[in-house]
Amino acid sequence: MKIVIVGATGTIGAKVTAELEKRHEIIKVGSSSGDIQMDMTSYESIEKMYKRVGKVDAVIVAAGSATMKPFSELEEEDFYVGIKSKMMGQVNVVLAGREYINDNGSFTLTTGILSEDPIKGSVGLGLVNGAVNSFGISAAAEMKRGVRLNVVSPGLVEDSAAELGSYFPGHNPVTMDKVVNAYVKSVEGIRTGEIIKVY
Amino acid sequence: MKIVIVGATGTIGAKVTAELEKRHEIIKVGSSSGDIQMDMTSYESIEKMYKRVGKVDAVIVAAGSATMKPFSELEEEDFYVGIKSKMMGQVNVVLAGREYINDNGSFTLTTGILSEDPIKGSVGLGLVNGAVNSFGISAAAEMKRGVRLNVVSPGLVEDSAAELGSYFPGHNPVTMDKVVNAYVKSVEGIRTGEIIKVY
Repeated sequence: MKIVIVGATGTIGAKVTAELEKRHEIIKVGSSSGDIQMDMTSYESIEKMYKRVGKVDAVIVAAGSATMKPFSELEEEDFYVGIKSKMMGQVNVVLAGREYINDNGSFTLTTGILSEDPIKGSVGLGLVNGAVNSFGISAAAEMKRGVRLNVVSPGLVEDSAAELGSYFPGHNPVTMDKVVNAYVKSVEGIRTGEIIKVY
Repeated sequence: MKIVIVGATGTIGAKVTAELEKRHEIIKVGSSSGDIQMDMTSYESIEKMYKRVGKVDAVIVAAGSATMKPFSELEEEDFYVGIKSKMMGQVNVVLAGREYINDNGSFTLTTGILSEDPIKGSVGLGLVNGAVNSFGISAAAEMKRGVRLNVVSPGLVEDSAAELGSYFPGHNPVTMDKVVNAYVKSVEGIRTGEIIKVY
């Protein structure tokens, strides 16, 4: 398969890439690294990426940011950071990809446990994760030509636990192997419209 | 209690108002009807509403729209209709309301079954519902002064079944009494951070 991985050099993306490149052709996309640079907050930039890459069998997004800030300090514009990046960035990768994805291909998006199990300051990111989860369920049900769409929702991943663990009191870090397997399941498996929770 | 109801003349809002006005002071807010007019897509308009109303004990939002369109025709800007109205409109009613809500007061927002059980054309609305559900869980956990926040998520309501039922094949209409009770539970009960599903 020819697979685009957006965020291929990130904490999760690098491990997913390492596994999938054993048996597939990977095009690494990043904001400043990888084979192709793309600004996921720009629909134009996403379209330009697809024009360079051409038809693909699978697209994975493991990228996107949102504002972390105590709720008492959150203002409207803080939400739009995540809306433009992790939320509509992922939605737009699917929208622009509708004409580039091959029959029976797949999209795999990334959210996280904060949609349902918040930590201090995660309101903006939780909202985005909830939006993308529901987008995934909904869009998958209307896909054509056998195209599938799933969302991987990891908990705190072990590779981030040293740096971020103190912000996630009592959260059990999940092994990177299990997280990578969720992407493998989405890309190489048969299911669609699934929120693959790795908690 | 002094209760603001945004969308007080809508299908759901009118019935919620009829029940709660039996024992509370209700300020009806609508886009073109009610005691006060407010444009929920504008933070300024929401702030202006609060300035006129002053301190309140509860705020209910049963309003907001999003684009219904087959996924194959959906474009980026279609999503922003719902983002600005039903999604950030509800978020902004809470953000602007932080300084107007009394100790131990409550916010009650509205989503719906389409976040998890889509119908044809509901991608844009489902995304918004998922976002507001996760916002509710997250923001409730960081509320101060005993302020609570819940989200009511109704299925197809019986009052809309004649008009909309054909778009919801196999959905079981829910009685308006149960939907109204969900708002009563949120406002007069003790729970917070709950997605009150009425399916």
